[in-house]
Amino acid sequence: MPEDCLDTSNTVTCTAPVNIAVIKYWGKRNEELILPINSSLSVTLHQDQLKTTTTAATSRLFQEDRIWLNGKEEDITHPRLQSCLKEIRRLARKRRNDGDPGVESNSLSHKVHICSVNNFPTAAGLASSAAGFACLVYTLARLFGVEGELSGIARQGSGSACRSMYGGFVQWLMGQQDDGKDSVAQQVAPETHWPELRILVLVASAERKPIGSTSGMQTSVLTSSLLKHRAESVVPGRMMEMNEAVQRKDFPAFAELTMKDSNQFHATCLDTYPPIFYLSSVSHQVINLVHRYNSHYGETRVAYTFDAGPNAVIFTLQQHVPEFVQVVQHFFPPEINGGQFIKGHPVNHAALSEELKQSIGLEPMPRGISYIISTKVGPGPCVVQDPAQHLLGSDGMPKKTV
Amino acid sequence: MPEDCLDTSNTVTCTAPVNIAVIKYWGKRNEELILPINSSLSVTLHQDQLKTTTTAATSRLFQEDRIWLNGKEEDITHPRLQSCLKEIRRLARKRRNDGDPGVESNSLSHKVHICSVNNFPTAAGLASSAAGFACLVYTLARLFGVEGELSGIARQGSGSACRSMYGGFVQWLMGQQDDGKDSVAQQVAPETHWPELRILVLVASAERKPIGSTSGMQTSVLTSSLLKHRAESVVPGRMMEMNEAVQRKDFPAFAELTMKDSNQFHATCLDTYPPIFYLSSVSHQVINLVHRYNSHYGETRVAYTFDAGPNAVIFTLQQHVPEFVQVVQHFFPPEINGGQFIKGHPVNHAALSEELKQSIGLEPMPRGISYIISTKVGPGPCVVQDPAQHLLGSDGMPKKTV
Repeated sequence: MPEDCLDTSNTVTCTAPVNIAVIKYWGKRNEELILPINSSLSVTLHQDQLKTTTTAATSRLFQEDRIWLNGKEEDITHPRLQSCLKEIRRLARKRRNDGDPGVESNSLSHKVHICSVNNFPTAAGLASSAAGFACLVYTLARLFGVEGELSGIARQGSGSACRSMYGGFVQWLMGQQDDGKDSVAQQVAPETHWPELRILVLVASAERKPIGSTSGMQTSVLTSSLLKHRAESVVPGRMMEMNEAVQRKDFPAFAELTMKDSNQFHATCLDTYPPIFYLSSVSHQVINLVHRYNSHYGETRVAYTFDAGPNAVIFTLQQHVPEFVQVVQHFFPPEINGGQFIKGHPVNHAALSEELKQSIGLEPMPRGISYIISTKVGPGPCVVQDPAQHLLGSDGMPKKTV
Repeated sequence: MPEDCLDTSNTVTCTAPVNIAVIKYWGKRNEELILPINSSLSVTLHQDQLKTTTTAATSRLFQEDRIWLNGKEEDITHPRLQSCLKEIRRLARKRRNDGDPGVESNSLSHKVHICSVNNFPTAAGLASSAAGFACLVYTLARLFGVEGELSGIARQGSGSACRSMYGGFVQWLMGQQDDGKDSVAQQVAPETHWPELRILVLVASAERKPIGSTSGMQTSVLTSSLLKHRAESVVPGRMMEMNEAVQRKDFPAFAELTMKDSNQFHATCLDTYPPIFYLSSVSHQVINLVHRYNSHYGETRVAYTFDAGPNAVIFTLQQHVPEFVQVVQHFFPPEINGGQFIKGHPVNHAALSEELKQSIGLEPMPRGISYIISTKVGPGPCVVQDPAQHLLGSDGMPKKTV
């Protein structure tokens, strides 16, 4: 092999999932270490529908650390990227010095090239930074032979990224220490725990780009007295209740707490000064739709949750998916001859009774929902074994197809 | 005078104002007596623009108590109407028994006819029940010769009605007693106190009728932990701050607290389960507009507040009215050849700089605001001396013009 060729054993590709919080994280007690003011709990979405793929490679030929995100080179000196890179290298050095044979000793003195893509539009507002930083940290750890607790490093890239380090149901414990060592994620139930649970992402036609979550939560911590009360006095009890609901697979309890916590998070955004609005008129319609649907059946069959944007994430059990999707399609009539309305996991057709339509009784909002992504609970980050899937070519540069 | 004619001395006509809370009332600790979970503070709007007019008459010829509201006979047995009627008659009897010569002794054994009209559409969502019950109580008190503290009776008709019993700036002290005797309104500054203060009611084009405030606040008290925290731990401090801001005529302090309290009230509605939305996309646009306008000038020149509906009530000082009205007209272009856009107190024309428009930089929402009512701080209830203004004819029935 000629000297100027990369050694492919120093290239690693991994994937990582998106997660959606059902007990919300909003507000940091330490901006630099990304330590939250309350614990949170999330569901990991299946990577068959939504994932980030990252390839990282080291070579003695690389002149500097470089990163490409979704086909565009980005600034590697970004502080949060640097936090993750430095932490992984520090751990790798530590392991090497401790005599761990798994650590690629050579790699440590080499520069790294990183290439990352999402299989979903960033604009969909699906917490791409969580999947992105989880994937970065997981991939770098593999590349440098680092093992063990990695969620604390992912956390320093993007708070909610620590929850994307595990599959299934995951809690991020806020921790008490000033250095953040105890602010880590842990799985509370694996992805196989509740096979009937289904997830629908309702991608709303965005009116405008909402305020970013980093600056939004800073303003909330500074100005909202309701947020402080929520973090201190409401969330601790809800974390216990949510844990129990997940363990028991108690859908009504899980669903109601999920909706209440989403609403309370958005309430604290409204209590922020100046106020922050993430819910659009489409979001309001989805909320009303869900409550009327449940009310029609006299039981909680469907739940919504919203992050820092207008898209709804819907939880339901598999037997209710076909009908509820029809309900969404009825009250948000899609564009005729538009793209596919239902993406991801196939959904059977269902008939809607006139009674149900009348019972919901909302004015349809044409084109309010662009499309639905049908998915379920999924596993944590994975290594991609097939070298053909690497996003970096043998020259260490992004492949043209990326 | 023939026996079957009414004695006109037993007919009284009064008017009462609308008030808008700047520290919001939301939630009762006693549904029957209408005792609130927190104190509130309001500004009384001028009756030149917005008022209720009520005529009440007694006659030995009347067969039963009757009431007409806005031209339509309503059920006099409504519990809240009965509370007010019974309380006034009880006080009148008490005074007669105490030997007060002012009490119309005859009237007490007679039935009463009541006729009431608003000079603004009920649909405008302008707390017509507050002006309505204040006017009813004030008029009945005059009719039966009752004097003294009447706000506690108006409160039993509609909570916020107690604040419409005074002009200027009014606080409703929540009180501590179980019988509600200390839950009364009092003026904190007269209508002449702050002559520069101006009020604009931005009537939003309503998408649908929102949930009523009575049932809304019941659900909030039952389900929102943020509301409980607000009532117990946030409002007491804000009442003091608002009182001081009014006394000092400190517009920025008054304005910021007004906006924060409106936002917090709507936050508690969102924290209610199921959530309640009163703010529409038009309301959100008004909120963004006000913050960007203030931000452009680097000072708080304008404030918004919203009650249980999408209409904005704007506070500003008179020198800023012409420009701000132009700003509203620019970002909510009215229907061409529609009705009058600016009603009430005349507003001078102002030019808008391109710089200001660009600095606000919002996408205009055509026809989002139906019209603006321009008004100011005004006096409390008044007696109408001219008998020609009575809404009941000499036969004790509503005049045809009503």
